[in-house]
Amino acid sequence: MASSTQGQVITCKAAVAYEPNKPLVIEDVQVAPPQAGEVRVKILFTALCHTDHYTWSGKDPEGLFPCILGHEAAGIVESVGEGVTDVQPGDHVIPCYQAECKECKFCKSGKTNLCGKVRSATGVGVMMNDLKSRFSVNGKPIYHFMGTSTFSQYTVVHDVSVAKISPQAPLDKVCLLGCGVSTGLGAVWNTAKVEAGAIVAVFGLGTVGLAVAEGAKAAGASRIIGIDIDSKKFDVAKNFGVTEFVNPKDHEKPIQQVLVDITDGGVDYSFECIGNVSVMRAALECCHKGWGTSVIVGVAASGQEISTRPFQLVTGRVWKGTAFGGFKSRTHVPWLVEKYLNKEIKVDEYITHSMNLSNINEAFHLLHEGGCLRCVLAMEH
Amino acid sequence: MASSTQGQVITCKAAVAYEPNKPLVIEDVQVAPPQAGEVRVKILFTALCHTDHYTWSGKDPEGLFPCILGHEAAGIVESVGEGVTDVQPGDHVIPCYQAECKECKFCKSGKTNLCGKVRSATGVGVMMNDLKSRFSVNGKPIYHFMGTSTFSQYTVVHDVSVAKISPQAPLDKVCLLGCGVSTGLGAVWNTAKVEAGAIVAVFGLGTVGLAVAEGAKAAGASRIIGIDIDSKKFDVAKNFGVTEFVNPKDHEKPIQQVLVDITDGGVDYSFECIGNVSVMRAALECCHKGWGTSVIVGVAASGQEISTRPFQLVTGRVWKGTAFGGFKSRTHVPWLVEKYLNKEIKVDEYITHSMNLSNINEAFHLLHEGGCLRCVLAMEH
Repeated sequence: MASSTQGQVITCKAAVAYEPNKPLVIEDVQVAPPQAGEVRVKILFTALCHTDHYTWSGKDPEGLFPCILGHEAAGIVESVGEGVTDVQPGDHVIPCYQAECKECKFCKSGKTNLCGKVRSATGVGVMMNDLKSRFSVNGKPIYHFMGTSTFSQYTVVHDVSVAKISPQAPLDKVCLLGCGVSTGLGAVWNTAKVEAGAIVAVFGLGTVGLAVAEGAKAAGASRIIGIDIDSKKFDVAKNFGVTEFVNPKDHEKPIQQVLVDITDGGVDYSFECIGNVSVMRAALECCHKGWGTSVIVGVAASGQEISTRPFQLVTGRVWKGTAFGGFKSRTHVPWLVEKYLNKEIKVDEYITHSMNLSNINEAFHLLHEGGCLRCVLAMEH
Repeated sequence: MASSTQGQVITCKAAVAYEPNKPLVIEDVQVAPPQAGEVRVKILFTALCHTDHYTWSGKDPEGLFPCILGHEAAGIVESVGEGVTDVQPGDHVIPCYQAECKECKFCKSGKTNLCGKVRSATGVGVMMNDLKSRFSVNGKPIYHFMGTSTFSQYTVVHDVSVAKISPQAPLDKVCLLGCGVSTGLGAVWNTAKVEAGAIVAVFGLGTVGLAVAEGAKAAGASRIIGIDIDSKKFDVAKNFGVTEFVNPKDHEKPIQQVLVDITDGGVDYSFECIGNVSVMRAALECCHKGWGTSVIVGVAASGQEISTRPFQLVTGRVWKGTAFGGFKSRTHVPWLVEKYLNKEIKVDEYITHSMNLSNINEAFHLLHEGGCLRCVLAMEH
């Protein structure tokens, strides 16, 4: 299925971040054809995630400008470069910021999902083949972001960074499986390996935290304690499996002590889904002596550090972290999509807002309102 | 086999720590008979460990004085209190600072060796039954230490804190299995679960570090990198399985970077066997992205904290700790003694000095000399 645009530069709309903390600009950008090992994808829907916002805000020292943000999306392959065999034009796909090459030391280890194949390029906003960007505006290059740059009607990604999914899946929904929902589920299933009967604490009831609760419920957790400073989030959280709520503001004692008290010694598993280093400490310290495991899911601001007394670990607590929930992207994203189609996992319920690409700045502001979980943008083709 | 002293107060020699950082005093102490659930043990040999020194130094805020230190020893049961069925007079035993009751939440969990049965008493230097000490000098009570107090010719311990071992085992050797050697082996076998082919880093080449090396060698590690600021330790370390040596003083780069460089990305497992929080950080950060696991074995001074960037964990490193190497004391100490008798583990090689109880202050000073691993004291009965 050759498209008429194959091999051509495509001019399309994209939201360009020219400077930190300044409104994104909807621009006509030129998207070069995919080179060897690359795939050009027509993005149909993209959601916004806090990591986009973090880089946009200028707080990410590795953030490069101008760039095209976005990493939680779904689309259809427009054309492929030389040597690409795993996808072809017309395939429905989810771009994956975490690649999976199936060949590198990491992929072969069987111990991690952190493929290293294209990281040296995606980390600096370019493509591996020539270390250049495929995006430009009037001849001036625009950096890629996370190897995905989904705030564009067309994007170019590495073939190791694109998951082919069922054509039956509604792209306006499953785009969420490109980041937040998958991260939360995987943190529980892959990283912590929560078992039936376990007591679980979830710090932060945004999309990732709610997905953790959902994953813990599916794993058979006996108690799922949601912790958030915004009590309004609690009603929604029940629908995702949270069984009890604790608002740290309602207590004078440190939150870790509150949790230890109500759980006869601490929780079996805790998850930090905010990105706050003080909360990360509390999440570790609320774990049960002897076996409690705490998983850092949230991304802290650059330069911040976590601390605790080593006694916390010597007495049996385990401190871990997770990226993309430990899911191998090209292997597991299609599997997650199938689970969604079989109604085994929620996705629709995380979408609180739907807008168009042209409203992206408004959507960015929504992200920090308590009532917003995910806002999905239609790309207005 | 009833002993003539059964039911009687025994007056015997013990090294009493009257004040922090002051020489221990060899005294005639009165040791009361064991009460229900207690065992009085004739100590034949005791080794000295850094934890004894730490409490003696006054830096341990939970240290109580006057007390009788010592927790790495072997002896023979002199008499038992009411209800004690697992050991009887004449049994060869190793007192265990980590109890194992086989009944509490911790013991039953199958996830930890940190039995909680007698902790509330041993933590404050007394026995559970009446929350009093069994030691006195001229009627004035002397605190117990770690539930063991082996710097005495006779001591009283809880029945859940005494491991019955083979009568064939030489007590002047296997006393070391009461702490340091077991801790190092268990950190590798139980806590980290090092597998064949793994690359291992050991920070600190004292008794515990060498036991880690020995355990790693037995587990089939492909490289065992010893790190110590005293290069003189390297020759001895080879005998315990260390394959390469790194002295941080020989490098300008941080030690974690040195190790990442020589291991193509980091080690699979690291062990901190010093008790230094900066080294704990280095031990974590020298681990391989995606799967490297760092185990804290050393005991840091009170109030000190470990820190790192959360990114270290989010990218797949795991931070753990271990106490008594994860061994369940009454179950595994006898098993370790059998392994020693079958020549499957070293013990003799850790003993660099042998002295008598009356030289205990000299032995304490030796502990901080590079050439000393373990000094074993004969109790001069």
